[in-house]
Amino acid sequence: MEQRVSLITLGVRDLGRSRSFYEALGWITSAEPDADVVFFQAGGIVVALWNRQQLANDSGVEDGAGWGGVTLAHNVHSPAEVDAVLTEAEAAGAAIPRRGAETFWGGYSGVFVDPDGHPWEVAHNPFWTIAADGSISL
Amino acid sequence: MEQRVSLITLGVRDLGRSRSFYEALGWITSAEPDADVVFFQAGGIVVALWNRQQLANDSGVEDGAGWGGVTLAHNVHSPAEVDAVLTEAEAAGAAIPRRGAETFWGGYSGVFVDPDGHPWEVAHNPFWTIAADGSISL
Repeated sequence: MEQRVSLITLGVRDLGRSRSFYEALGWITSAEPDADVVFFQAGGIVVALWNRQQLANDSGVEDGAGWGGVTLAHNVHSPAEVDAVLTEAEAAGAAIPRRGAETFWGGYSGVFVDPDGHPWEVAHNPFWTIAADGSISL
Repeated sequence: MEQRVSLITLGVRDLGRSRSFYEALGWITSAEPDADVVFFQAGGIVVALWNRQQLANDSGVEDGAGWGGVTLAHNVHSPAEVDAVLTEAEAAGAAIPRRGAETFWGGYSGVFVDPDGHPWEVAHNPFWTIAADGSISL
């Protein structure tokens, strides 16, 4: 198995609401308005929004109905940019369980939670490099 | 917020077991043997393994204790490669809730579930392009 990820699918309860949330963050999809699945090109991978029950069935898993041990992160270039993204997410309807602050690992981060309970850490990690195309190198 | 993902953190119960699982799939980490977090460079993003309870606390969420609505996918170049990856994952200890088969959307895929319950769809999608560097384009 090659060392890469192609797609992250986020299970959602109300596709229109979830699509609007990510669009409010500035994300662009070419999905039709009535599409059953919404795909966002996200750098070299794809982020998809799909009905959570259908995703559970398709994945052959039981839905635990809450958070299931996966957190995404979006790294940015500065602490100020962390705060700006969190402010943008909150304005779009996200919960903010952790505001931007210095972290134990020497960076600066906060967390927003999307309308379906999926958390995103927004982080400035001074030890990792963000390339011009947005890719991350350890 | 730029349209990209930097990091996917998978919460795990036994870091050694989970690390060994991904290493058995051929993934390579430079993490020390006693590291608390294991990072894998996965194309232009990073996949991390970290203690699930610490991840829940850090993410400001309650742990639903099961699957939480996120499925990853790993796209490959052919149906035969789907089957080969599923066989490799099963040998490494994964559950296989769905064997490789043709899908309703015109591709071929199956699913393995890692030791912590995180499902990966392994897919051949003839409508998407996999670049030489492994990145996916819609």
